[in-house]
Amino acid sequence: MEFKHVFICVNQRPPGHPQGSCAEKGSREVYQAFMEKLQMDPELFMTTAVTPTGCLGPCMMGPTIVVYPEGVWYGNVKVEDVEEIINEHLKGGKPVDRLVISKGKPPGML
Amino acid sequence: MEFKHVFICVNQRPPGHPQGSCAEKGSREVYQAFMEKLQMDPELFMTTAVTPTGCLGPCMMGPTIVVYPEGVWYGNVKVEDVEEIINEHLKGGKPVDRLVISKGKPPGML
Repeated sequence: MEFKHVFICVNQRPPGHPQGSCAEKGSREVYQAFMEKLQMDPELFMTTAVTPTGCLGPCMMGPTIVVYPEGVWYGNVKVEDVEEIINEHLKGGKPVDRLVISKGKPPGML
Repeated sequence: MEFKHVFICVNQRPPGHPQGSCAEKGSREVYQAFMEKLQMDPELFMTTAVTPTGCLGPCMMGPTIVVYPEGVWYGNVKVEDVEEIINEHLKGGKPVDRLVISKGKPPGML
């Protein structure tokens, strides 16, 4: 496995904020799910970093994740999607198309 | 300019914590300096994202920054270094070697 770096927005805004936030939509649980898988899987642990971040930009599509070096952007990620992203993308090299919201740059950037 | 994504650790630990932290060493001011440059420079604004993060790992070498998609890791970054990173690396495509602590994966990862 080549090294991959998974960035997960855990930004929290106050309840009722018009932009919403990834944390409000469950991104901290998604982050926890990645960390648990990582820590129990030696192959993954040796080849992957998972980092919580502030706002990644596409708040309306959150929880938002971006995987580098390939720059695959995921939206609406739920805890139930974490195993698929790990197996198909991080280990298998094939992004999970149904969750991809952009490639190479953030959604909406020209 | 190709799209680049700059991640800056702004993790804060309590004073006296044995690991120290990037925030304690000035990383939030580094983040602010990047954001100010970004917002006043249309070319940069259209092609670059800057995201604050939790711990990136190499705390002892902080403030830590990683630039994707190329995966260039910088350590000991100071506010005075921000303009050089922007001009040489983000705009010029040439990493600032004197601050590089790893390429392609985090320092210390085999």
